[in-house]
Amino acid sequence: MQSSIDLTRLPRSVRLGRDADGRAELTYLDERLLPGEECFCSTGSWRCVVDAIKTLAVRGAPAIGAAGAAAVALWAVNEGARGAVSHGCAEAGESFLAELRPVAAEISAARPTAVNLTWATARMESFAKRLVAEGAAPGEVADSLFDEVLRIEREDEKVNRAIGAAGAALIPEHARILTHCNAGSLATVFFGTALGVVYAAAEQGKVERVFADETRPVGQGARLTSWELSRAGVPVTVICDNMAASLMGKEMIDFVVVGADRIAANGDVANKIGTYGVAVLAHHHSIPFYVAAPASTFDVSLPDGSAIPIEERDPSEVLPQPIDGVDVYNPAFDVTPAELISGIITEFGVFPPQDAAREVAARVG
Amino acid sequence: MQSSIDLTRLPRSVRLGRDADGRAELTYLDERLLPGEECFCSTGSWRCVVDAIKTLAVRGAPAIGAAGAAAVALWAVNEGARGAVSHGCAEAGESFLAELRPVAAEISAARPTAVNLTWATARMESFAKRLVAEGAAPGEVADSLFDEVLRIEREDEKVNRAIGAAGAALIPEHARILTHCNAGSLATVFFGTALGVVYAAAEQGKVERVFADETRPVGQGARLTSWELSRAGVPVTVICDNMAASLMGKEMIDFVVVGADRIAANGDVANKIGTYGVAVLAHHHSIPFYVAAPASTFDVSLPDGSAIPIEERDPSEVLPQPIDGVDVYNPAFDVTPAELISGIITEFGVFPPQDAAREVAARVG
Repeated sequence: MQSSIDLTRLPRSVRLGRDADGRAELTYLDERLLPGEECFCSTGSWRCVVDAIKTLAVRGAPAIGAAGAAAVALWAVNEGARGAVSHGCAEAGESFLAELRPVAAEISAARPTAVNLTWATARMESFAKRLVAEGAAPGEVADSLFDEVLRIEREDEKVNRAIGAAGAALIPEHARILTHCNAGSLATVFFGTALGVVYAAAEQGKVERVFADETRPVGQGARLTSWELSRAGVPVTVICDNMAASLMGKEMIDFVVVGADRIAANGDVANKIGTYGVAVLAHHHSIPFYVAAPASTFDVSLPDGSAIPIEERDPSEVLPQPIDGVDVYNPAFDVTPAELISGIITEFGVFPPQDAAREVAARVG
Repeated sequence: MQSSIDLTRLPRSVRLGRDADGRAELTYLDERLLPGEECFCSTGSWRCVVDAIKTLAVRGAPAIGAAGAAAVALWAVNEGARGAVSHGCAEAGESFLAELRPVAAEISAARPTAVNLTWATARMESFAKRLVAEGAAPGEVADSLFDEVLRIEREDEKVNRAIGAAGAALIPEHARILTHCNAGSLATVFFGTALGVVYAAAEQGKVERVFADETRPVGQGARLTSWELSRAGVPVTVICDNMAASLMGKEMIDFVVVGADRIAANGDVANKIGTYGVAVLAHHHSIPFYVAAPASTFDVSLPDGSAIPIEERDPSEVLPQPIDGVDVYNPAFDVTPAELISGIITEFGVFPPQDAAREVAARVG
């Protein structure tokens, strides 16, 4: 198969920069408007970033991690460091950290399930603490936090390319791949996790077609996965979520790969609602079912998936017009038990789900 | 549990009658407009009924069976018998039958998967043949075909109530029941098949709640099942199709019941796309999975489900706005193999799927 993959046609979903006055600003693609409109927004306000995360303008576990870190930097550069200049140095640092704490907590709480948000804000906070302990002034800390976000952005792409390379080795020739939700370039800073595997395999000419589950109620598959795959030149077919079983039954699917929002110590995986069902279906049809996720998605503080908080979202996502006397249940995530997962694809390689947290922790150090 | 079920609040979905001039007319509920609008249309044109079936204004296997029979009667009373009056009697009868044949064929072909449409038009056609053979004039044949439709309508409700009674015995106390698509009163002339089981069980105070799969892309669960259950006083919660697995995993579902569009001799069942997936999920979670359908849904001419024709519908049902370079696959039905089905609930009782066709045929005669 001839590869005609062109990733330069994919936008970066988030990018921290500075405006003409030196204020920090985050530029993000408003993914609520895709595929109709490719609209980039820029903001210097950390609160606007929190809103963008809550309203799904920015979504996808790694992307909201990077955006959350950027929100911390926006606060630090545009607010925290400016308010702190009148203080003496040691006191100023402590005061800066004291103000940073509730800001980071609010950013971290924007959405509950993806651990990457907590991971990113914790990384920013502990980095700030270390700098203050070393005697840095608030302005220096803020600039360093800004640079740390750029590092996170670069790492994200590097990690995703490593995930892609590790995962592509699993993909058979002429593969017809099913994915659920969007764990693509649009869900990360660039390249994607599950779709990173697809892109890497497609560059090797191994991908015949991707089937993208629509992913109700928000339609990340129908609107985002379809859009970015067709942009990049990967053949893609959208199906409704309830059609996946039929395709598997007709032997039209060779491989399933999805992303993750949080992975517990035992390898249980929280991901977009519907993932668990796809895993059960893949198991029933003896189709490989892989999860692709970076080290930042592991949460070894939770022994298993039962402790992962599951966000419930507004009923209007499911029924825009309420019906008299009709209830709606709208959990945004579900948990797939480790035993239904063929392997977890990380930047450090592919591991059995039960071993992945330990293997990754050993390499992160 | 106190039953407060009120089925008088449910409309009849189709009803054949006569207008002031004695012309036959079919009055049907346009289900495309539900739940927003409860709009009844009346037509004397058999071609309009074919359109109503094709566009899903009238849908549900038993309802399109009754509507198909009514379309034959509309042709017979309003066109066939009028055109035939100038002929001599025996010749007139043959001429009437010759004209009826392509009309019945066109009605029967309005949608390919549900066998009830073929069953109903074949019943009407063979009834007409018998009358003509007995020497009836076209006008008499037409009036008898009209009466035959009224008989089909009455039988439908009677059969559904028998299905309901047979199925209700299977439902445990405090049952939380999952259903897919709409096999309710709206899918039949009145009362429903799968929801007939729910209504009968609810009248016995055994139904705690029904979870209605949204049923993409047309939303028969979100729009129709939810509407009729809440109208009738049955607690109902709409979920997206991809949430069913999560509910089963959390032990929130005790029983699954769905309808059918065609049942092959070996007990394989064609039903709304997504049914097969629900069956696999129910099997994985050891939850009883039943199919409720009348004798008219069995097609013993097909040894198994692989020969059932599966309708593919327009991509715009899935993606109203096409996306450049993105394909859509939109099969309207899938086939659930007999081994995933706990039993088939018919008007003659509940049978193992493998035996159901034979048991039903023995009783239909």
